[in-house]
Amino acid sequence: MNAEIKILKPFTPNELTLVVGLPGMAYIGKLSVDYLIQQLKADLFGEVYSMHFPPYVIIKEDGLVELLRNELHSFKDEAGRDIVFLSGNSQAFSPEGQYSVSEAVLDWAIENGVKRVYSVAALVTERQFDVPKVFATATSAALLEEAKSRGAEALDHGLIGGENGLIIGLARKKNVEAACLLAETHGYQAPTGEYVIDPRAAKAALNVLTQILGVEVDMEPMEKQAIEMDEAFAKMAEIERRVREEMTQSGKKPSYVT
Amino acid sequence: MNAEIKILKPFTPNELTLVVGLPGMAYIGKLSVDYLIQQLKADLFGEVYSMHFPPYVIIKEDGLVELLRNELHSFKDEAGRDIVFLSGNSQAFSPEGQYSVSEAVLDWAIENGVKRVYSVAALVTERQFDVPKVFATATSAALLEEAKSRGAEALDHGLIGGENGLIIGLARKKNVEAACLLAETHGYQAPTGEYVIDPRAAKAALNVLTQILGVEVDMEPMEKQAIEMDEAFAKMAEIERRVREEMTQSGKKPSYVT
Amino acid sequence: MNAEIKILKPFTPNELTLVVGLPGMAYIGKLSVDYLIQQLKADLFGEVYSMHFPPYVIIKEDGLVELLRNELHSFKDEAGRDIVFLSGNSQAFSPEGQYSVSEAVLDWAIENGVKRVYSVAALVTERQFDVPKVFATATSAALLEEAKSRGAEALDHGLIGGENGLIIGLARKKNVEAACLLAETHGYQAPTGEYVIDPRAAKAALNVLTQILGVEVDMEPMEKQAIEMDEAFAKMAEIERRVREEMTQSGKKPSYVT
Amino acid sequence: MNAEIKILKPFTPNELTLVVGLPGMAYIGKLSVDYLIQQLKADLFGEVYSMHFPPYVIIKEDGLVELLRNELHSFKDEAGRDIVFLSGNSQAFSPEGQYSVSEAVLDWAIENGVKRVYSVAALVTERQFDVPKVFATATSAALLEEAKSRGAEALDHGLIGGENGLIIGLARKKNVEAACLLAETHGYQAPTGEYVIDPRAAKAALNVLTQILGVEVDMEPMEKQAIEMDEAFAKMAEIERRVREEMTQSGKKPSYVT
Repeated sequence: MNAEIKILKPFTPNELTLVVGLPGMAYIGKLSVDYLIQQLKADLFGEVYSMHFPPYVIIKEDGLVELLRNELHSFKDEAGRDIVFLSGNSQAFSPEGQYSVSEAVLDWAIENGVKRVYSVAALVTERQFDVPKVFATATSAALLEEAKSRGAEALDHGLIGGENGLIIGLARKKNVEAACLLAETHGYQAPTGEYVIDPRAAKAALNVLTQILGVEVDMEPMEKQAIEMDEAFAKMAEIERRVREEMTQSGKKPSYVT
Repeated sequence: MNAEIKILKPFTPNELTLVVGLPGMAYIGKLSVDYLIQQLKADLFGEVYSMHFPPYVIIKEDGLVELLRNELHSFKDEAGRDIVFLSGNSQAFSPEGQYSVSEAVLDWAIENGVKRVYSVAALVTERQFDVPKVFATATSAALLEEAKSRGAEALDHGLIGGENGLIIGLARKKNVEAACLLAETHGYQAPTGEYVIDPRAAKAALNVLTQILGVEVDMEPMEKQAIEMDEAFAKMAEIERRVREEMTQSGKKPSYVT
Repeated sequence: MNAEIKILKPFTPNELTLVVGLPGMAYIGKLSVDYLIQQLKADLFGEVYSMHFPPYVIIKEDGLVELLRNELHSFKDEAGRDIVFLSGNSQAFSPEGQYSVSEAVLDWAIENGVKRVYSVAALVTERQFDVPKVFATATSAALLEEAKSRGAEALDHGLIGGENGLIIGLARKKNVEAACLLAETHGYQAPTGEYVIDPRAAKAALNVLTQILGVEVDMEPMEKQAIEMDEAFAKMAEIERRVREEMTQSGKKPSYVT
Repeated sequence: MNAEIKILKPFTPNELTLVVGLPGMAYIGKLSVDYLIQQLKADLFGEVYSMHFPPYVIIKEDGLVELLRNELHSFKDEAGRDIVFLSGNSQAFSPEGQYSVSEAVLDWAIENGVKRVYSVAALVTERQFDVPKVFATATSAALLEEAKSRGAEALDHGLIGGENGLIIGLARKKNVEAACLLAETHGYQAPTGEYVIDPRAAKAALNVLTQILGVEVDMEPMEKQAIEMDEAFAKMAEIERRVREEMTQSGKKPSYVT
C-alpha cells in the first residue's frame, strides 16, 4: 500500500481542476481547503491511504476509529466543470513517502484529464502586518499572472517543503499547469510544538483562490474565526509587552516568556 | 522478507476472531494477550518475521538465540470457534514497517475468514485512580456498544500509535469489524527508558476482553502480579513524598527525584 | 520514480567523459562544475528526478517553481569528444537514495559508452594556507598519476561522503576508470548551518580538472569571486582576533565568537 | 543493488562453514575474523555490495578509492572442508538494510550447502577481569554444548544487535545450525565516538573459535597487540585513579574525567 486511492463512488471528472490543502505550517492549506469543501458542500468520493503516513489511528467524536488518510471531494461549478479537493489529516513523513503520495494523487488526476492544479501553503515571516499578503509561485508565467491579477504577489526565491509544494513541482515535471498560493503567517507554535491555526491567513489565501476558481463562498464564518484568533494574538502580545517592561525595570531577563 | 508468516502446522480457522497484543506502552497489550495464551493453553501454529523488526536477536534462558518475531497461537472455544492471538517481542519501527507487518497478518486473517479483530493498548493518564478504567474505540457503533456493555467507556478523541491501533484502522479500511480496548495507566518508565509493566491495567483490560470473547480464565495469578506492583508503586510514592517533605524543609529542590 | 533520467533532446555521446559536481561541503564540487557548464556554454539535454531528493520545491527569480533535481549538460571538445556534466541543487539524503541516484546516472553513462568519470569534492582542513592544495584519489594507478601530473597530491587515507565520492566507487565496481579531486577548504558554516561557498578552492580544483579534460576556460570571473571571498574571510579573521584580544584583557571568554 | 554478491573467481565450496565478523563494538568480530583470514592466508573470492551501506567511499594507502563493502574469503582445511569468512569495513545501518545484507550472504551460503554458521561479537561489561570470558548462544543445544566444551559460557538472557547476531537468528529461521561467540569487553570509546579495538577480547574469542573450527593459528602477533593495549589501558586507569585522588582531596568533582 505504497499509496492507494480507494474510490468510494463512480466519478468521471469534466474539465478537472485539482486543489490541494494538506496539513502543514499554521494549517493554512488544510484550513482553506477544508473550508471550501464545507462551504461548497463538496462530495466525498475517494480516500487516499498509504504505508507512508504516520502509523497512527485517530479516534473521532463518535468513538469510531480510522487510519490517518487523505480525502478526495468533488464540486461541480456552474459551468459544469469539476473541482476536486485533496484534503486530510496527514502528510507522509519521509521524502520517498511524500513523493509517493503526491505522485499517486497527481497521476490519478492526470488519468482523469486534469487541466490545472492549485495548492495552498504558508510563508512564515517576522514582518508585522495588519492584513497578511498572499504570495504565489507557478509552473508557468501565465498561471503566475493569473494569481497576480487576483491579488497575489510573485515570489522570486525560496523553498516550499512538504506535499503542498511537491505536487506543484511534480505537475511541472508532468507538463500540467499548477500554482501554489502562500499566505503570510507568523507560524506560532504551542508549547507542545503543535502549530496554532491561522484563519486570518487562510482567509487571505481563500480571497485569491476563490477568484481563481470562479466560486463564491460565504467568508463570514472564517472572518469570525479570524477575529477571535486576532484577539487571542493581541492579548498574547500585550502580556508579552508588559512582562518585558517589568523585567527590564527589575533588570532580570524574562526567561519564561517564549 | 517484508513481512513473512511462517506456518508451522496446518490450521484451518473456523469463525475466526483475531486478538492482537504487541509490546507497547506499559506492555498492557502484550501482558493481556500473553496471559490469555498461557491461561487458555493456546497452540502455537505460526511465526511472523520481518526485515522491519529491529535488527536484534534475543537470547533465551536455555541459551538459544532467535530473531525478534511475532507469534500466532490458536484456541478453539466451546462453540468450536477459533480465536487467534497475535503476540510477540517486537513491533516494526518505521511507518512503512508497521503498516507492512500489520497488513500481512490482517490479510492472512481475512484469507482465513476473520469475523472480528480486537486489540489491547494503553491510555496514559495523570488521573489518580484506584481501579484503572478501560476505554474503547471501534470501527462500528455495534462493536463500540459491545465493548460498552462489557464495562468499557467510549473515547471521543485521541490518537493510538503503533500496530495495536494500526491493525484496527486497517481492519476498517478492509471492511472487517474491529475494536481496541485501552486500559488506563500512568506509563512509568525505568531510568533506562524501559516501560514498567502494568498488570493492574492488563487485568482491567482482560476483564472486558474475556467477556467479549466469551472465555473464562483464572485471574488470580494476574491479580497477584498486580498486588505486587501496587505495593511497589505505593512504596515508590511514599519515598517520593518523604523526600519532597525533607527537601521543602531544607529549602533544596529534590533534583534527584525523577 | 526511484531515480529517473528525463532526456529533453536526443544526444548520442562520442567518447564520453562524465564530470560530477553535486552540492556538498563548501559547495566546491557544485561551484566548479556549474562554472565549467557556464564558461563552456554546455548544452542542457537531461534532467534527473528522484523520490529520494528532499521533498522541497524551489522558487526561481522569475517566480516559477520546480522540483529539486540534477541536470545533465553536454560539451563537445575540439577533438569531437563529449563531456557530460552532472550538476544540480540537491543530493539524495538516505544511503539507499544516494546509491540509487548515483547508480542511475552512472548506468546511463555506461550505456552510452563512458570512458572516464571525474568528480570534485572538498577536503576540510584546519591547516593554514595561502593557496589550497588539490588532492586526488582514483580507481587506478594510471588515473591517479594523471591527476598528480596535473598538480594534485595523492591521498593515502580517508573517507568521502556523498554522491561525489559514491559515483567514483560505483565506477570502480563497474570497471570504469574514475577519479575524485578534493580541494582543501576550511569548511566555514554560516550560523544557519549553510556552508559558505569557497571559490578559492573551486578555482584550485578547476586548475587541475581543466588540464585533465583538456579544456580552457577564462578563470578571471572565478578569480574575482575568490578575491572577494578572501577579503570577507580576512575581515572575519581580523574581527575575531581583535575580539579575542579584548576578551583576554578583560578576562572573559569570548562566548559569542563562533 | 539491495545486496549484491560479486563473485570474483569460481569457487565450489565443500562441506561449507561460514564464519562472520563484521565491524561492531570494540571491533572484536572484525579483528578476530580479519586475523584468521590473514593467518590462514584465506583466498578472496567474492565481494558484497549494498545500497544499504553508509554512502561513503574509502581511500586506501595506495591512493585508490573504493565503496564500503564486505568480502568473502575461503580456506580449505586439512580434511578438505571449506571455511568461508565474511568480513568487511561496514554494516548496513537501517533494520531493512541489515536484514537484506545478512540474508543475501546467508542465502548464498545455503545455496552452496552450508552446514554451520559462526559469528563473533562483543559483550560489554563493567566487571573487572584479568582474562575476558567468552560467552556463547546458539540455535541448538548441540552447538551450545560444542562452544561450552571449547571454553565458552552459555548466556541465558540478552540481546545482540547488528548483523553478527542477525545472521545467526536468520540461520535458525532457515534451519541452519549456528552459534555466536561473545567476548567480554569494556567497550571503550574514543572522544570521537570511535570504538577502541580490543585485541585481548579478540584473542579470547579466537581461542574458542579456532578449536571449534579445528584450525591452528599463531597467536603471538595478536598477543603482542593485546599486551600493548593492556599497557595503554593500565596507564589510562592509573591516570584516572590519581586524578580522582587529587580531586577528592581538593573537594572538587573531577568533571573532566569521563
